[in-house]
Amino acid sequence: MDLALEHTLALTMADDRLGILEDATIGIDDGRIVAIGPSSQFEGTADRRIDASGTLTTPGLVDVHTHLGLTICRGGAQDVPEIEWMNRALGPLTEHLTAADLVVGARLGGLEALRSGVTTVGEYAANVDRLVDDALEPLGLRVVATETINAVAESTDELGPDDPYPLDETKGNAALERNEQLFDAYDDHERVTACYGPQALDMVPPDLLETIRDRAADRDRDIHMHVAQGARERRQIEARYGIGETTVSVLENLDLLEDNLLAAHLHDATPAERERLADAGVRMAANPSSIAAIDGITPPLTEYREFGGVAGIGTDQAPGPGGHDFLRELRTTSLLSKTDREDPTAFPAWQALRVATIGGARALGIDDQVGSLEVGKRADVVCFDLEHPSLAPTVSEPLHTAVPNLVYGATGGHLEWAIVEGEVVVDEGDVTTVDEARVLEEAQERAKSLFERVRADWQAADSELVGAVDDGWL
Amino acid sequence: MDLALEHTLALTMADDRLGILEDATIGIDDGRIVAIGPSSQFEGTADRRIDASGTLTTPGLVDVHTHLGLTICRGGAQDVPEIEWMNRALGPLTEHLTAADLVVGARLGGLEALRSGVTTVGEYAANVDRLVDDALEPLGLRVVATETINAVAESTDELGPDDPYPLDETKGNAALERNEQLFDAYDDHERVTACYGPQALDMVPPDLLETIRDRAADRDRDIHMHVAQGARERRQIEARYGIGETTVSVLENLDLLEDNLLAAHLHDATPAERERLADAGVRMAANPSSIAAIDGITPPLTEYREFGGVAGIGTDQAPGPGGHDFLRELRTTSLLSKTDREDPTAFPAWQALRVATIGGARALGIDDQVGSLEVGKRADVVCFDLEHPSLAPTVSEPLHTAVPNLVYGATGGHLEWAIVEGEVVVDEGDVTTVDEARVLEEAQERAKSLFERVRADWQAADSELVGAVDDGWL
Repeated sequence: MDLALEHTLALTMADDRLGILEDATIGIDDGRIVAIGPSSQFEGTADRRIDASGTLTTPGLVDVHTHLGLTICRGGAQDVPEIEWMNRALGPLTEHLTAADLVVGARLGGLEALRSGVTTVGEYAANVDRLVDDALEPLGLRVVATETINAVAESTDELGPDDPYPLDETKGNAALERNEQLFDAYDDHERVTACYGPQALDMVPPDLLETIRDRAADRDRDIHMHVAQGARERRQIEARYGIGETTVSVLENLDLLEDNLLAAHLHDATPAERERLADAGVRMAANPSSIAAIDGITPPLTEYREFGGVAGIGTDQAPGPGGHDFLRELRTTSLLSKTDREDPTAFPAWQALRVATIGGARALGIDDQVGSLEVGKRADVVCFDLEHPSLAPTVSEPLHTAVPNLVYGATGGHLEWAIVEGEVVVDEGDVTTVDEARVLEEAQERAKSLFERVRADWQAADSELVGAVDDGWL
Repeated sequence: MDLALEHTLALTMADDRLGILEDATIGIDDGRIVAIGPSSQFEGTADRRIDASGTLTTPGLVDVHTHLGLTICRGGAQDVPEIEWMNRALGPLTEHLTAADLVVGARLGGLEALRSGVTTVGEYAANVDRLVDDALEPLGLRVVATETINAVAESTDELGPDDPYPLDETKGNAALERNEQLFDAYDDHERVTACYGPQALDMVPPDLLETIRDRAADRDRDIHMHVAQGARERRQIEARYGIGETTVSVLENLDLLEDNLLAAHLHDATPAERERLADAGVRMAANPSSIAAIDGITPPLTEYREFGGVAGIGTDQAPGPGGHDFLRELRTTSLLSKTDREDPTAFPAWQALRVATIGGARALGIDDQVGSLEVGKRADVVCFDLEHPSLAPTVSEPLHTAVPNLVYGATGGHLEWAIVEGEVVVDEGDVTTVDEARVLEEAQERAKSLFERVRADWQAADSELVGAVDDGWL
């Protein structure tokens, strides 16, 4: 076989618990897991043997909802009111972004995610193929790529919040065609798959949504959509579909509440609506740091799981929550859940690790391929150094403290090895697939130029962040 | 001079903003800052010159409230109900701790704190001198040491929650005498000072508190005390002092609400009481991750600062919140504040950095010595690598994105240099004062032995965490 990862503490997620295996060895061949079990029973020879003693090994972490290209805008939009974030803080930046800026941003954001143990990202972007081909695929990540389908006509500046955005059918159809091309482009790709990406109910006309629904059903594809993400959307839905209608009620009428739907956010739905979604098999992408930073809200992840819903966690975008360190995101998710529920037992460490692995894989519809360490599955495997000041000490009796210590203690930077589809992409802490210094240098150059171009527009938008600059804070 | 740190982006905190200086050089001699300003105007020669280009430099971070010795118990007490945490999860562990275990734990926890940019800790422990002398002082940290004064008689197992704990005057007085010895022991120490540590109102008799109050006033010392930390304390105060009395009302009657009091927690006080404390000049130690993890509560830090109160942030102890990564704590503090207030502008990045530096120094009463980068102050200085996947890119126009990126992007592991009292204790990311591998190894050995000794008692206490182990989760 190609590779044997030896003498690690493994969390396999192979049953409905964590599948803890002490002193385990994992055999990998041709991109698949071919053996996993006690090191003492391991048979076979490997071209490469890694002594992973002193590490904790889990399935590669799954970051279900990201806009990695926006990492180039890190630091340009945070600490502002929710109503300002999109249009007055981030908006002036995104209007000036070039395709090359987004590629460089995705490379940086992907690198950060990878360094924290992420092996799969659910990347959501317009012209997502560029980010996949030029940034994420070369990094060695697995990608579930979603093409943003947005039909909102170009200038909506003159509209009040209760005037429905004009929708441009041609624009929407063009985006759908780009989306269709993804399925062909990645048809045989080992690490890239695609799904449909109608951005949100207020941004796509209903007939286009029906087309997407029918095609997704015919072709057995998933739909990844932002659902019930706040007051702006709520007002648009009432303006377009009538008072009393909500995103969930309209999606239900359109027969879109099916088990091939991955719904991001959901904080602006009611508990009753979320229960309907969970019952319908709709999967949830929760983005706790992002929604806390931008909206001041804890997403209803704990509740959704109590309703029996399948859920994964995403880091969304860097501007706002700060970045794509996924281990940190697990800790944040747990602490936000505990304070939201006023219950320190909410979202315990073991649940966090299941949601981060097999849960995320289910949310993205790829749990037949990844999300657990089992013979036959694709070899996406990450090893964290337990001999680290933020994780040590660890004991195995009377409980495996490595489990809480990974969730509450660790952050990115404790990763020793990452293997995706059998390829070692992080080796003794070093990323093997890209020149990390060059990624940082490119990002620095691009950001400097971007913020120079953006400067006047960003200031003119006059967000509270501009006020803080004027007031001498930044 | 001894040292020049050249070409860094400095946040001096020297005025009531962040004091941003681009391309700054900081000159250090004999433990003090002797020059700070634009590199182009720097004069003088230094025995050592550090090229700090590409870094962000701040005053050393101040972690105002820690129990670092307990790091040895990391992973043994979390994800349990508040009522169980102290007595049924952590308690069985602490009962078996030896003095040597605590020293090894403090060395590990101090190392973790230092690695995240902390140069001062407000360590709170019984026999705190051992932790200072054998762990924290040799690490190179600055310490404000507090001796725990607890007069609760040994066995309180048979008592109901509304039976006042019997208090043992002899025990309390002995602790006070240990506390007094600290002042002599560290009288001339450049990096260690001490304050009085009555643990909490329910654990110390009122006459002992009055003695402490009078001595602190006579000798110009601070008092560091846990105040209004939850239901258990509230019930004890009513049982001891009468229905309707609260910790704050009793402390007020005892004339303890003065500007030499540092009050940890405060989440179980009312807003009106907290306003009284802020008005009286009482300082607050907020421990957001700890209180979120253990109580499911966001501490009232934002409110306390709105009342005009002085506040610092602490990481408390590793079991529960997971550890002492202080940069991570800043981000957590901000996200918890935003969700608690349902306001994404709450506790913005710039406030976080002021609270982490000069705010913490004020909280510990050492802002005349540290907390800002100014000529004459003690040279506690930390430099973070901006060329890192979690911090990059950074621009200086139209805003200094390094500020939000440090708070929302960074975690421990991005530290390049730490200087305490002029001594370089972290040099190009390596800790110079201790053998890090040996610290980890010792902690591992000690923890293994501790958890073996504790095992039966920990299981017998039958917390929900034991239930999770029995249920196959851990």
